[in-house]
Amino acid sequence: MLSKSQIKSIKALHKSKFRNKEEKFIVEGAKIIDEFISSNYTIIAIYGVEEWTEKHINRSLNIIKVSAKELQTISLLKTPNQVLAVVAYPEVVSLNYENNDLCLALDTIQDPGNLGTIIRIADWFGIMKIICSKETADAYNPKVVQATMGAITRVNIEYTDLAQWLTNLPVDVNVYGTLLDGDNMYETNLAKSGIIVVGNEGNGISAEVQKAITHKIKIPSYAYSKMESLNVAVATSIVCAEFRRP
Amino acid sequence: MLSKSQIKSIKALHKSKFRNKEEKFIVEGAKIIDEFISSNYTIIAIYGVEEWTEKHINRSLNIIKVSAKELQTISLLKTPNQVLAVVAYPEVVSLNYENNDLCLALDTIQDPGNLGTIIRIADWFGIMKIICSKETADAYNPKVVQATMGAITRVNIEYTDLAQWLTNLPVDVNVYGTLLDGDNMYETNLAKSGIIVVGNEGNGISAEVQKAITHKIKIPSYAYSKMESLNVAVATSIVCAEFRRP
Repeated sequence: MLSKSQIKSIKALHKSKFRNKEEKFIVEGAKIIDEFISSNYTIIAIYGVEEWTEKHINRSLNIIKVSAKELQTISLLKTPNQVLAVVAYPEVVSLNYENNDLCLALDTIQDPGNLGTIIRIADWFGIMKIICSKETADAYNPKVVQATMGAITRVNIEYTDLAQWLTNLPVDVNVYGTLLDGDNMYETNLAKSGIIVVGNEGNGISAEVQKAITHKIKIPSYAYSKMESLNVAVATSIVCAEFRRP
Repeated sequence: MLSKSQIKSIKALHKSKFRNKEEKFIVEGAKIIDEFISSNYTIIAIYGVEEWTEKHINRSLNIIKVSAKELQTISLLKTPNQVLAVVAYPEVVSLNYENNDLCLALDTIQDPGNLGTIIRIADWFGIMKIICSKETADAYNPKVVQATMGAITRVNIEYTDLAQWLTNLPVDVNVYGTLLDGDNMYETNLAKSGIIVVGNEGNGISAEVQKAITHKIKIPSYAYSKMESLNVAVATSIVCAEFRRP
């Protein structure tokens, strides 16, 4: 049985302030927790109902058996799915752009669902690093973690002053920005490496970040559409697909 | 001031059963309602707060001024945005595939957010018709309407027995289906016209619908990814972009 103080310390992680202080976050659900177990993340504790714990009994993990009611208490989900894990923040990987591959840069993506979907898209297209502006949603917000469907275990996500980070890149690095007044991306020579910058849901890429962009691109819209823009995650997926197109 | 019976009849439209009976649905927010006003839809009534109504006073519309509190009562949003409209279902357009263009077919897309995003994608890529299986989410669910950002005013959406509809198509119509065991879409000859079938979030395209597919395609995943699939709206956007690629 969980003590009051255990419950309190887990529930504290529902809030960004305590996650950052404790450097821990919450993951929920059997499938995604299996991905974390197979990953390099350090799992601090796993709270599972019997149905889950009996399947994982031989694992060298800190597993605590809880009742369905206890799981409901510590969970953020309406219908908790068997198990909740407390996981340590990963160590900061180098912020350097040195892998000579594609990298995503997010300029203030605010919606957790969009951020989670973008992390999932990055993973699908083998983009291993995402650099976020400090105003971007917290990747360890449980809504983001769940929306990644486990992709967050394979993609490095770092927060920094994005405009400054881009400005400090070597001069020969291509910085692509998706902008409404950009060039048709199908008529642009897209290199195999570089940074792809995507902007805020409502305001796009900030003026300061735009200064560091070397190639402004856009997805052309089909003639009849009156749409001003696509959802940012959808736009990111179309751009990434084009960069990775064989 | 709204009467109790007015409030009751508007709130009934929060539920699918009453929407289908009354053949009316709800739209909320100044921006999207402007799109409906400019569209062919018949607007039955508009309930706006003074800030909105005074800007629209000269319009020949059935506008009812309400207080912020009344708007809150009839709204589905946590923070209502100035105005709510009751709109009539559009007339059923022909279910025939005759426009010799691209058409989307949805096999049981269940999440309202995904359906709304797919309608928005169709609009962006100039795909004017979507045929849905009867088990697909209700396009007039307010969550779907809002997620389309107005695109629903420009795309025809019809519900039918999808397997049967596909089977009855002329034999020379290309029916593309996105399947995990499909051929790499970048190595497939994608015609300028045909049907693109996308399947359910969890189960993909049903066995019965698969029988009518003439070309099984997939989006190849990048080498390192362990992801089983992309979100269905994201996958739809990548496929549509490839079909419309210049």
